[in-house]
Amino acid sequence: MGKQKLHIVKIGGNIINDKNTLSAFIKDFAQLDGKKILVHGGGKRATELANSIGLEPKMVNGRRITDEANLEIVTMVYAGLLNKTIVAELHQNNCNALGLSGADVNTIQAHKRMVKDIDYGFAGDIDAVNHKAIDVFLQNDMTPVFCAISHDKKGQLLNTNADTIVSEVAIAMSKDYDTSLIYTFEKNGVLRTIEDDNSVIEHINSKYYEQLKEEGIIADGMLPKMLNCFNALQRGVSEVKIANPTILKNQNQLHTTLVL
Amino acid sequence: MGKQKLHIVKIGGNIINDKNTLSAFIKDFAQLDGKKILVHGGGKRATELANSIGLEPKMVNGRRITDEANLEIVTMVYAGLLNKTIVAELHQNNCNALGLSGADVNTIQAHKRMVKDIDYGFAGDIDAVNHKAIDVFLQNDMTPVFCAISHDKKGQLLNTNADTIVSEVAIAMSKDYDTSLIYTFEKNGVLRTIEDDNSVIEHINSKYYEQLKEEGIIADGMLPKMLNCFNALQRGVSEVKIANPTILKNQNQLHTTLVL
Repeated sequence: MGKQKLHIVKIGGNIINDKNTLSAFIKDFAQLDGKKILVHGGGKRATELANSIGLEPKMVNGRRITDEANLEIVTMVYAGLLNKTIVAELHQNNCNALGLSGADVNTIQAHKRMVKDIDYGFAGDIDAVNHKAIDVFLQNDMTPVFCAISHDKKGQLLNTNADTIVSEVAIAMSKDYDTSLIYTFEKNGVLRTIEDDNSVIEHINSKYYEQLKEEGIIADGMLPKMLNCFNALQRGVSEVKIANPTILKNQNQLHTTLVL
Repeated sequence: MGKQKLHIVKIGGNIINDKNTLSAFIKDFAQLDGKKILVHGGGKRATELANSIGLEPKMVNGRRITDEANLEIVTMVYAGLLNKTIVAELHQNNCNALGLSGADVNTIQAHKRMVKDIDYGFAGDIDAVNHKAIDVFLQNDMTPVFCAISHDKKGQLLNTNADTIVSEVAIAMSKDYDTSLIYTFEKNGVLRTIEDDNSVIEHINSKYYEQLKEEGIIADGMLPKMLNCFNALQRGVSEVKIANPTILKNQNQLHTTLVL
């Protein structure tokens, strides 16, 4: 008997930022058949809250530098406001959502990133995903909804990249499930021309990825995302897609599929 | 065979407000044998955050009036910062904590309080506790940690009194467990003389409670707390104690026990 199918879906910040887009996504996700997990990014609310109390968020290489005050902000916004708002709206749509941070039943254990050139502060790099605990939830028809907060099991919460969380959770669940990973964001997929949402590159394998990097078509923020995707495929995830969230209700929609 | 023992412990805001007192509590709670649930109140952080962004919290009859902006604040502070900080520190102490709001797997369903004389805003009165979902967690050696946020299953989060949450959860779990409810706060119990922490009234039954009310010894904030306690006893909870959190490691410590 083959493994049971499991969908793991990531929604990016730009989808979360718009109330109507988020609601449409939640409806579609709720209707997705079978076992599923949602991972959400942060969006602009953390920055807005930080600004409103006079904190200046620090960014280096596209990553937030998380000092203690900013860790409190992201814990409040990601694990509190965003996570519970999404969970409540999923229940409205009859999806039995369970909001989680990585601290909850030690689902995602990480360590504070080592200081080399840059001190990222309370940024966490993942050591282990507790796939048995997550499986308890799935087996009881609960739908885990992860925010991008982990911990070190020594009492310290850590800010962790949501793209990394989704790929590490997908890899861990691949032991027991036939895992399909879908990164959703505001575009239709990986684009050949950034201004043209129809210029989707439909299939990318490792070799073609190297070529697209050399041509400068895959660059900037898309680079770590793609690395996470190929890492997931190499470590047991069956399928990785990069797509607009409308793919959840229309599988034939234009999107990017990654293969090894 | 008798029912399995379950401890349900509430920690009040004054204990949460002091980092060292909270850490001491967490150590003691983590070491409590057997199945257990923690419910935490809010503390002063929500008020501080509201102040720092220029919101004025509104209070009527000792209850916070929860407008939309204040609901966001309490969701961030209770479900985010406090809940995840407590969960992470419980894991540091080898307690397999799972942070929950009432929205998570619909554990606590409520409705927005009807407007009579006062419009409490997004304040939730509890309709149902999902004891089966909570039992799944307990049976898998997870320790639920509830904050004081519920939802209406129509997409609306609601601010809900933590004392009420702890008694309703205790009542619901009494179907399957021999349930002991412990309200912990900074005093040693119900005091005959508020200034004298040794003037603990060790046993209070319903009749004596009426007498203490008439004498004005039980008044103000203690009244709804006591109503919750007797409600819990009447509806199946085996035992209710009001005590300083140090009772968790020293059962012989002076405290108040309530009986019907």
